[in-house]
Amino acid sequence: MIEPRLASGLRDLLPAAAIPRERMLEAFRRTFASFGFVPIETPHIERMEVLQGKGAGSDEVLRQIFEVTNRGGERGELALRFDLTVPLARFIARHVDELKVPFKRYAIGSVFRGERPAKGRFREFVQCDFDTIGTTSVVADAETVQVIQRALAEAGVADVTIALNHRKILDGLLDQLGMAGQAGAVLRAIDKRDKIGRDGVARELTRPFEDRIERRGDGDHLEGPETRPPLCGPEQAEAILDFIERGRGGRDVLAEAEAQLGTQARAAEGIANLREVLRLLEAAGVPESSLTIDLGLARGLDYYTGVVFETTVQGWERFGSICSGGRYDDLASLFTTRRLPGVGASIGLDRLLALLDEAGRLPAGATTVPVLVTLFPGVGPEVAVRLAARLRASGIGAEVYPEAIALGKQLGYGSARGHRLALIVGPDEQAQEAFNLRDLADRSERKGISWGDLEAAVGSALATGLGTTG
Amino acid sequence: MIEPRLASGLRDLLPAAAIPRERMLEAFRRTFASFGFVPIETPHIERMEVLQGKGAGSDEVLRQIFEVTNRGGERGELALRFDLTVPLARFIARHVDELKVPFKRYAIGSVFRGERPAKGRFREFVQCDFDTIGTTSVVADAETVQVIQRALAEAGVADVTIALNHRKILDGLLDQLGMAGQAGAVLRAIDKRDKIGRDGVARELTRPFEDRIERRGDGDHLEGPETRPPLCGPEQAEAILDFIERGRGGRDVLAEAEAQLGTQARAAEGIANLREVLRLLEAAGVPESSLTIDLGLARGLDYYTGVVFETTVQGWERFGSICSGGRYDDLASLFTTRRLPGVGASIGLDRLLALLDEAGRLPAGATTVPVLVTLFPGVGPEVAVRLAARLRASGIGAEVYPEAIALGKQLGYGSARGHRLALIVGPDEQAQEAFNLRDLADRSERKGISWGDLEAAVGSALATGLGTTG
Repeated sequence: MIEPRLASGLRDLLPAAAIPRERMLEAFRRTFASFGFVPIETPHIERMEVLQGKGAGSDEVLRQIFEVTNRGGERGELALRFDLTVPLARFIARHVDELKVPFKRYAIGSVFRGERPAKGRFREFVQCDFDTIGTTSVVADAETVQVIQRALAEAGVADVTIALNHRKILDGLLDQLGMAGQAGAVLRAIDKRDKIGRDGVARELTRPFEDRIERRGDGDHLEGPETRPPLCGPEQAEAILDFIERGRGGRDVLAEAEAQLGTQARAAEGIANLREVLRLLEAAGVPESSLTIDLGLARGLDYYTGVVFETTVQGWERFGSICSGGRYDDLASLFTTRRLPGVGASIGLDRLLALLDEAGRLPAGATTVPVLVTLFPGVGPEVAVRLAARLRASGIGAEVYPEAIALGKQLGYGSARGHRLALIVGPDEQAQEAFNLRDLADRSERKGISWGDLEAAVGSALATGLGTTG
Repeated sequence: MIEPRLASGLRDLLPAAAIPRERMLEAFRRTFASFGFVPIETPHIERMEVLQGKGAGSDEVLRQIFEVTNRGGERGELALRFDLTVPLARFIARHVDELKVPFKRYAIGSVFRGERPAKGRFREFVQCDFDTIGTTSVVADAETVQVIQRALAEAGVADVTIALNHRKILDGLLDQLGMAGQAGAVLRAIDKRDKIGRDGVARELTRPFEDRIERRGDGDHLEGPETRPPLCGPEQAEAILDFIERGRGGRDVLAEAEAQLGTQARAAEGIANLREVLRLLEAAGVPESSLTIDLGLARGLDYYTGVVFETTVQGWERFGSICSGGRYDDLASLFTTRRLPGVGASIGLDRLLALLDEAGRLPAGATTVPVLVTLFPGVGPEVAVRLAARLRASGIGAEVYPEAIALGKQLGYGSARGHRLALIVGPDEQAQEAFNLRDLADRSERKGISWGDLEAAVGSALATGLGTTG
């Protein structure tokens, strides 16, 4: 007998977890598609050379790579993808002539990282990415934010805050402070302010420090550490920290930044771009309450060059970002000399589900259909099968219990699974071509409904309850 | 520069292929769910011990396994799943107390086999499985067939033939012929009749032969070869071949089988079971034209013990089965002493898509939305963004072209992608709060529609065309 266990760091999803996850993915796919994003598929297995290309992943991610070997194959040639961005870059470089730009794609799939197992961290997890490739248009920037808001709202998570910033504003500040060469490391230090506080960031800026980098799209997964020399002196650190502390809020934040940095060309460009993003989001009807400017938002990844964003659920900010992304100048420079700018985001499905679970916002139950059609002992199953088929044809999901065991056991199954109604045809009902409906929550019952009234009676019971007790 | 190519035997799916695939999966998920099947998720990576358990996969499948190793991990411990059945067995054995039976699950996911690359065969492909575990009920047998028919019809493939047989009928025949011990090998030989003909099967039954076994759920993937001694003499072979040749058709085939084998208890049980399946399928409204009895249908896998089925698209029988399955006595005997009978099927998504592609039945186009909202040079993008948001809110997908380049180029993009309508707001229209609609196929146009009439005008144009030329 083989023990039916999983490898370390992997997990099964039972229906109670997989059902809300599937509903959420359906909402994401529907929303992505409604904006003209189209699906693509790339294999889970990529060539190691593609995944290990310089800049494709950090050293830490590459240390976590899962190698793949088939019998007769050599080690070190193949591996499992660790994100969906490197495969996207390879895909675009390979197919760009066929695809034409602008190209809008979404991709939803598992990625793999051999991290040290820890609570809430898994070695296989799902990313939900969407990107617009081959345009520098601010319309695409704004649309990316709009899609984040819509996708989450469609999935039942309308209470989010999407924080926006623009890399060039911070670049302008660092230019002004004479720190242009340090941008990457400074941004990564700033990124940690929520975790280590102002003093912590000040220390990181002014002392040698161990740098850990969050990767795009899934904040659960950290990189590093590596040791670096001090980035700046205490006055520069103060100036940076003052700037980002004053930089959270509405549009007025941009006016203040303009007053301080307006003469700096890069910063002015970033401020103008963000203002246009906000203007378009207003035109799109994105609620202002969902948006905030955060000039300290850095997204510590060299990859980003323009607008950047992070999304938190209101009141659950400690969970960190559940969707982040931004604009980049050159997606596929590892694979092609063709310059492919773009903008995109990635929803951290697993983190979002963990948050909703902790918040008690995931629906209970382990079924997707409201009606259980029981099999009464002594009544042939063809009646149940026929009535269930009619319900489904009318758009009402129905499960037929497969065995004519004691009715109480079947009703217990329905209650445990989370069915709302049980449909019962005993010998008397069969003789009268009728059925009984029982509400599995409050046990109310309606008896002797004619088969002819099936769809109407069940539809109304699902909408407004049974209203009578039997 | 790294070459953006894939490993041998793997492929990218571009939108023109990924869009119909996604629509098909959506139809499958919707159908499975409407019958009360619930999703589960298991990792792509399993422990090697689980995958290599005796009987889990054939020798050939095990030779094709992809090993997985992460840095620091030992070789030979982990591997990629080669089907969804072994992970289901492990999952059920691990969680059965929590899940309770009967348990109905579906799973859709990639599986991996390091086959020799060949046209139409890939090393990663998707399986769509659904199973009802923990019941021996004929209601579940019939429902499995019903789900196959509904899922394919919902996906636009209503013109199928589902061939049905029962293992016990063939077992009864072999008992009668004194060949009970040879059942597995005989069934695998019979399975090949469409490929090698009657004479070929006769040869395989009466001579030492090389045996190749099809695995459940994906006929693209063959196993073997191995050499065996002769299974029977020529008279026995004739009797078998006569039986299965007369055994294709409607219910009368069962009557003939009963006349020949009715005294044999196992055969009688199989015949009665198939009759009940047909009776329930009639009650469920499954068209009789979708069903056929085929007493030679063997599904050469020792696993099956009751009803078995295969599905072909009418007129495309040479593509082989696109969905097959059957009843088994004991799903998880590798992992638990608990006996778990069940019935299930697996849709071969990739083969079905290849068939529809060859039949010219896949929709062309590389977009999922009917409307392209253009950006007119000199008109700010907020109008387009606002109108597109209104269309989406009314349920009409709309893509905004992100750049105000020459209108002709934008319309060319829309035609190439497969958008049906372009929405245009030039400076004159903007001043009048109006827009123009253009049919991208026939180039007809309707001009000067008021913004207030947006949803109605676009909805009607999509339903019945523009009707006028501009």
